[in-house]
Amino acid sequence: METRVSSATREVIIGGGRPTVLIGERINPTGKKRLAEALRSGDLSVVREEALAQVAAGADILDVNVGATGVDELALLPLAVQAVSETVDAPLCLDSRNIKALAAALAVCPGRPIVNSVTGEEASLAQVLPLVKKYGVPVIGLTLDEKGIPNDADTRLAIAHRIVQRAEAIGIPREDVIIDCLTLSLGANTKAALATLEAVRRVKADLEVNQTQGCSNISHGLPNRIALNGAYLAMAIEAGLTCPTVDAAQVRLAILSADLVLGRDDYAMRFIATFRQAQAAATAS
Amino acid sequence: METRVSSATREVIIGGGRPTVLIGERINPTGKKRLAEALRSGDLSVVREEALAQVAAGADILDVNVGATGVDELALLPLAVQAVSETVDAPLCLDSRNIKALAAALAVCPGRPIVNSVTGEEASLAQVLPLVKKYGVPVIGLTLDEKGIPNDADTRLAIAHRIVQRAEAIGIPREDVIIDCLTLSLGANTKAALATLEAVRRVKADLEVNQTQGCSNISHGLPNRIALNGAYLAMAIEAGLTCPTVDAAQVRLAILSADLVLGRDDYAMRFIATFRQAQAAATAS
Repeated sequence: METRVSSATREVIIGGGRPTVLIGERINPTGKKRLAEALRSGDLSVVREEALAQVAAGADILDVNVGATGVDELALLPLAVQAVSETVDAPLCLDSRNIKALAAALAVCPGRPIVNSVTGEEASLAQVLPLVKKYGVPVIGLTLDEKGIPNDADTRLAIAHRIVQRAEAIGIPREDVIIDCLTLSLGANTKAALATLEAVRRVKADLEVNQTQGCSNISHGLPNRIALNGAYLAMAIEAGLTCPTVDAAQVRLAILSADLVLGRDDYAMRFIATFRQAQAAATAS
Repeated sequence: METRVSSATREVIIGGGRPTVLIGERINPTGKKRLAEALRSGDLSVVREEALAQVAAGADILDVNVGATGVDELALLPLAVQAVSETVDAPLCLDSRNIKALAAALAVCPGRPIVNSVTGEEASLAQVLPLVKKYGVPVIGLTLDEKGIPNDADTRLAIAHRIVQRAEAIGIPREDVIIDCLTLSLGANTKAALATLEAVRRVKADLEVNQTQGCSNISHGLPNRIALNGAYLAMAIEAGLTCPTVDAAQVRLAILSADLVLGRDDYAMRFIATFRQAQAAATAS
């Protein structure tokens, strides 16, 4: 199943056996002091920097989240979306829990961005899906509900079904729903990834929709995070993840490797081209 | 299903939900000029060096292969097995296509080594299985037959069934058969790993036996081999590989990561302990 996302000038297609699409996670002030401070003062230069760096590192789509204490998201999210759109040609993923901020960002965002996100909670389904329908864009559906994030795969699958059904009921096609089965830290519970991987596999089998996840959570509080994220990504991509939300600079090689192993890189052309670019960059520096 | 392997002083148990067991691949002269030359002159010092280095890098079992042009395997394999057994306490995997060399090595090897290997070929089944039965040891069964390595998963699965049936028919228990579904280079065929991963998954579902593979083949002729091997290993371990044959120094971190993601490392203790050892070693050097 294919999800089409675009900026004013560039289309990215997720799924259909294509190579994995990377959604760049770094325009998000959570845990980033410098970005959070810049956003609080209305300074979008750090946002522009991060946009350029992520696209250079291989991000295909950029998540844009400006949610931090002291930031007026309703005012700032549209400005950040415009700033990023002027800086790079990557399609965007508009990331906010504030429905008004999402509406304001959708009103100014060129192309066909992703809305991040709706959940299985009634209030969220009722608020977000009509906005998504109005703009005719794709939406990320998080498999959590009023009780929080389920521990088991069964409940996550049931929530994914509900989100897809509710979207389809108001005319949002299934291919525009991207499910996020949600990863938790292995540092807190070393069985956490098993349930998520099972949920990903079953969402793929049952619904065939595209799937994202913010995969760096998995290694929160642990050492060797890049290796751990890479191992998780390899398994999750094999299971059905098609557009992970990641730090491209850290995990692009793991993702290119996973795509090559899974037969999604004919003649290893992307893998080898990326290696040569890195070699050339190292020689030039 | 558990396979028990031992040296004179140490037992290693493969399978049963335990962490992945690493079979060190480096005592093998293929592509190693210095080792091949040493072996030709009967010098086992390089073999001892490689044994120590691999155990230090995290190998649990050591493969011992001395097959090279100009080497009398019948004379040298038992000597190499004795040399490794005197140097480290890791159990061994006796690796030769020469049945007499395997018999001579089994006669001198302490503990319970693995025989590497039998294939689905009639001549191999008829020769190797009685020797394995005589010594009561585990054996690696390669899923190839008179027609070579099958391209598809179906035929590999059928050969795995045949090897297990023939072993059981002469009293070798199923837990002592370790199946190798065989990886080919992605550089030659970018769809090669898909068939192997499918075969691994189906061998696990059908036979529940332990499984090995010489995984570094996958990246032959390609750049960024460690990343590619790591992505493949993560997927193959998730699918059912329990004792890959690898260069421990290169892929141990990827394997520790895969085990942690799959819930086989309670409280991440192995993962964190290995990180601390590496930190301490870096500080000391």
